[in-house]
Amino acid sequence: MKKIAVMTSGGDAPGMNAGIRAVTRTALQKGLEVVGIYRGYQGMIEGDFIPLDRFRVSNIIQRGGTFLKTARSEEFRTVEGRAKAAAHLKKEGIEALVVIGGDGSFRGAAALHAEHGIQVVGCPGTIDNDLYGTDYTIGYDTAVNTAVQAIDQIRDTADSHNRLFFVEVMGRDAGFIALRTGLASGAESVLVPETTTYIDELITKLEEGRKLKKASAIIIVAEGDDEGGALDIAKKVNEKFDAWETKVTVLGHIQRGGSPTAFDRILASRMGNSAVEALLKGSTNVMIGQRNNEMVEVPFTQASKHHETLNPHLLELVEILS
Amino acid sequence: MKKIAVMTSGGDAPGMNAGIRAVTRTALQKGLEVVGIYRGYQGMIEGDFIPLDRFRVSNIIQRGGTFLKTARSEEFRTVEGRAKAAAHLKKEGIEALVVIGGDGSFRGAAALHAEHGIQVVGCPGTIDNDLYGTDYTIGYDTAVNTAVQAIDQIRDTADSHNRLFFVEVMGRDAGFIALRTGLASGAESVLVPETTTYIDELITKLEEGRKLKKASAIIIVAEGDDEGGALDIAKKVNEKFDAWETKVTVLGHIQRGGSPTAFDRILASRMGNSAVEALLKGSTNVMIGQRNNEMVEVPFTQASKHHETLNPHLLELVEILS
Amino acid sequence: MKKIAVMTSGGDAPGMNAGIRAVTRTALQKGLEVVGIYRGYQGMIEGDFIPLDRFRVSNIIQRGGTFLKTARSEEFRTVEGRAKAAAHLKKEGIEALVVIGGDGSFRGAAALHAEHGIQVVGCPGTIDNDLYGTDYTIGYDTAVNTAVQAIDQIRDTADSHNRLFFVEVMGRDAGFIALRTGLASGAESVLVPETTTYIDELITKLEEGRKLKKASAIIIVAEGDDEGGALDIAKKVNEKFDAWETKVTVLGHIQRGGSPTAFDRILASRMGNSAVEALLKGSTNVMIGQRNNEMVEVPFTQASKHHETLNPHLLELVEILS
Amino acid sequence: MKKIAVMTSGGDAPGMNAGIRAVTRTALQKGLEVVGIYRGYQGMIEGDFIPLDRFRVSNIIQRGGTFLKTARSEEFRTVEGRAKAAAHLKKEGIEALVVIGGDGSFRGAAALHAEHGIQVVGCPGTIDNDLYGTDYTIGYDTAVNTAVQAIDQIRDTADSHNRLFFVEVMGRDAGFIALRTGLASGAESVLVPETTTYIDELITKLEEGRKLKKASAIIIVAEGDDEGGALDIAKKVNEKFDAWETKVTVLGHIQRGGSPTAFDRILASRMGNSAVEALLKGSTNVMIGQRNNEMVEVPFTQASKHHETLNPHLLELVEILS
Repeated sequence: MKKIAVMTSGGDAPGMNAGIRAVTRTALQKGLEVVGIYRGYQGMIEGDFIPLDRFRVSNIIQRGGTFLKTARSEEFRTVEGRAKAAAHLKKEGIEALVVIGGDGSFRGAAALHAEHGIQVVGCPGTIDNDLYGTDYTIGYDTAVNTAVQAIDQIRDTADSHNRLFFVEVMGRDAGFIALRTGLASGAESVLVPETTTYIDELITKLEEGRKLKKASAIIIVAEGDDEGGALDIAKKVNEKFDAWETKVTVLGHIQRGGSPTAFDRILASRMGNSAVEALLKGSTNVMIGQRNNEMVEVPFTQASKHHETLNPHLLELVEILS
Repeated sequence: MKKIAVMTSGGDAPGMNAGIRAVTRTALQKGLEVVGIYRGYQGMIEGDFIPLDRFRVSNIIQRGGTFLKTARSEEFRTVEGRAKAAAHLKKEGIEALVVIGGDGSFRGAAALHAEHGIQVVGCPGTIDNDLYGTDYTIGYDTAVNTAVQAIDQIRDTADSHNRLFFVEVMGRDAGFIALRTGLASGAESVLVPETTTYIDELITKLEEGRKLKKASAIIIVAEGDDEGGALDIAKKVNEKFDAWETKVTVLGHIQRGGSPTAFDRILASRMGNSAVEALLKGSTNVMIGQRNNEMVEVPFTQASKHHETLNPHLLELVEILS
Repeated sequence: MKKIAVMTSGGDAPGMNAGIRAVTRTALQKGLEVVGIYRGYQGMIEGDFIPLDRFRVSNIIQRGGTFLKTARSEEFRTVEGRAKAAAHLKKEGIEALVVIGGDGSFRGAAALHAEHGIQVVGCPGTIDNDLYGTDYTIGYDTAVNTAVQAIDQIRDTADSHNRLFFVEVMGRDAGFIALRTGLASGAESVLVPETTTYIDELITKLEEGRKLKKASAIIIVAEGDDEGGALDIAKKVNEKFDAWETKVTVLGHIQRGGSPTAFDRILASRMGNSAVEALLKGSTNVMIGQRNNEMVEVPFTQASKHHETLNPHLLELVEILS
Repeated sequence: MKKIAVMTSGGDAPGMNAGIRAVTRTALQKGLEVVGIYRGYQGMIEGDFIPLDRFRVSNIIQRGGTFLKTARSEEFRTVEGRAKAAAHLKKEGIEALVVIGGDGSFRGAAALHAEHGIQVVGCPGTIDNDLYGTDYTIGYDTAVNTAVQAIDQIRDTADSHNRLFFVEVMGRDAGFIALRTGLASGAESVLVPETTTYIDELITKLEEGRKLKKASAIIIVAEGDDEGGALDIAKKVNEKFDAWETKVTVLGHIQRGGSPTAFDRILASRMGNSAVEALLKGSTNVMIGQRNNEMVEVPFTQASKHHETLNPHLLELVEILS
């Protein structure tokens, strides 16, 4: 192998730049050439490439987002689109690819391998932490810390008043961010898609808190909760519970950005390094995962999205500690 | 004068604790006793007081919120309520009062003086910066920095996609927070209550940006804009402009909390110090303001809320630099 | 069991408050009474206790330091001192104790159990991460993030000049903080006590970087490195390498403070919860550890300080990626 | 005028990028071409230029440091060096220059004007805030906030022990950073070059604090204090006062980096905008200053470094409030 490419795909996540840096510098150290592909599969189809040397990836480990950018590509979902993409890779002499992204990105990589023989390895880059085969995904720790810091600021003011705060965090299908955010911020409740939300139970809990003379309550809502987002749930609660003034915060894309935490930088650095090593020993169609603090290779077929597997003990812990 | 009280009132603001600390320590240094009143005027009516010594205000200068808490008091709006409050003050031997809050709080203080002869001095504590007579209010600089940091995180991800972000900041009647936030975060537009918002003009600007190949745009919306909050405006824009994916963030009470900036701590420290000095030289019914870096006394009658006075040059500067 | 106590001991670490909160609220939920002991073993000897209810531990999860404070106690190292301490516990009806601290603190707890039959469980609270039996200690993740953020700021300016920065991080006997800090901040080298530092090799590396036209270099130094602290090493390097202006930063106690990261809050919450559960099922003389994301009980005899076990692959990774 | 250049010079300061952005976009909006000069006067001598369009200055407002970099230039101090530099400017058709830097940089600009007729306007970019003619310099507010946040973290741990902390902040000749840092962080004392430091007085103060049962003390030391840096002073104090454990932190270049505060971004944006407007109306040899919230032009001859003008009331306030 002489030349590999690296790209980021899907929703961006803090730590992706650290992953690109690790792929690049490991590859260079192994005597490989490295090419960066801009804007994911769409850039691959358009041949939007940039040669990466050690300087091009200097001073990016601390940056949020991804300097290679990401994009959606409908065209890559077609056989023709992938053929165009593969032609660009072959013209450039690129034999193997590291994709930093989610399970949809891995499926694209698998198709590229099946149809065009490109060797492909993935790194899990998504703030949602909802992939089988890895304990953590790149960006998750940062997203949780961002949400927690926001809630800390709300807590400063919550103490001063009789107030009920609903804070919406990311998670269309999964409550991982909501759960860890709730646990770390000492929230009163965490509402997630994986479990049924009962508005009446929530109100009962709030009433009990009020009788215990709690000054305020903070409820974390995953955007994809079965009873709706924070605005919806606040409205439903207010219809029956209006003892406290209600305030809503929707964190939105704040959670996707920000300088990655040390955890995410190290995770991405290790994964990027292992991805190149995996390519060199001939692996393909695998995602690099971290399990029990070790780097492992997980077949793409197993690295799919998973839901409904929130640690029930942690959900319970939110209630015990609130 | 032997004994004074200090309280915080109205919406809480970062830096209020620094103000309480400055009042307390200045008063102690001048040989006065100091009492803290919990929960603003409501706590005054209930006699919810705490003696303050130098240790009680240790290690609070960096804390958001206010450890004396605030509360609304309908009762204090009545002559009877104020009589109850004054009786508590007199029973405790409290001759003078420092109120950290907004213009509503100052009107309460004026009534207390008129009806019961309590000497009163105010410090402007509100994140909205909408008081005549002072260049800055306590909490404003922190609130702006909080919003700017949130938008920095959105910017990380904005660069990666074709996206349109609407970020709602505080400001029911005033666009001060929105204006400085927009200027400091390099936003494309700032929508404020003080000027008429034209959705069509905004769309035209977005279209122009798109033609210039801008990757994304961030629009700052003061919650009290004449066309509605960020969610409303996003909806109106989307009806005619859907070239970019649209995302909404509502910062909400995040902006009220957080450790105060150096600027707000110093402002609050100077104001708290000057408030006690003003009391000692016999001043009453004045707010301490900062004008041109100097502490000044501003009669309550002039320290009212003001709107429609946003610096037009700064509004224009947002457009020039975007 | 009806009544337990909780205390923090040794050097303080971010997340200790989250641990105290978790111990308290878990115990209350299980129907136990809880007492906090101020200032560690010295406070135990002096009977400096405070009853803890759910409100006393409100709004502390996000605070650095420990509200129960810590202190050194020479007296507790004596049989007489421990007898005094035990007498206070018994007088209060305290049957069991959770100690959040390091291995020295656990040895004290073991003595208390051996001599006076107090049931004792520990939680690893130290920023140094140098205890066998747990993958992470409470405070480590925060300390690393604090150091990394400081170095990010240096990096902003490093890029502008030909400069050589030495940054000293904590670690008298262990390089864990230095290693993860170096990896996450993209440092050129990490100097740790566990491996021999060769000044000449370092200079050779710097010369090579200079020839490669690197703009600057950042070297992380654990305070206990065999060649001295950052100031010593900077001096030794400068004697032979003066091509770049040299600057030294000593982070010092900045690393002990700060709001704990989500990781440390969750770790401390889970450990505090498990500590009470361990007491309830009769365990004693064990530390709660986290291994492979699970809570485990580790006998005090195994939970000793360890050194010279830095992951060699991670040390190598710093070099590969720099 | 058709074409101008912008550069950063001297020690870098947070907000310089915001200044470059404002110069560039204002100039473009006025129909001018803009060139960036890398590495200050040295880059000017070498003709190291880059054309700036609106995209080149996108997404930099939030970045610390300066993307144009700075450098020292001995050669520019010579008539020959300046002739080379001017030749490059003239070859490129550059008629006017905006320099963001300190008074040394302005003297260089003045020489360029005197000898070669280049129109020159300066913006005060230095964290030290030690220039006559402006209330604030670009970078000062950020540097103070950085130092204050570091000390907040020390304070978390200070509360737990009997400890004496010395924190060294920047300021070789001026105590501005130390003063505002001390005031905002609630330090016990601030030691600055502008006033004589008496070690014995400091010890007396510490002894008094200890008798008052203060838990700890934090002393801010400007690096250029007449009694030495933090390490020197700690040593001198320890010879006579050893009741508390003493710890030293040297913040160093942390203070030069970091994302600029809202204040610094707005200041730099306004100054950069005004600098271009000043050029367009024919001004030369002036620095843009902010006085009483207004932009003003200050002749270079007046914009020199100043010392010994620390606000004595603020120094006194540190003592009153500590």
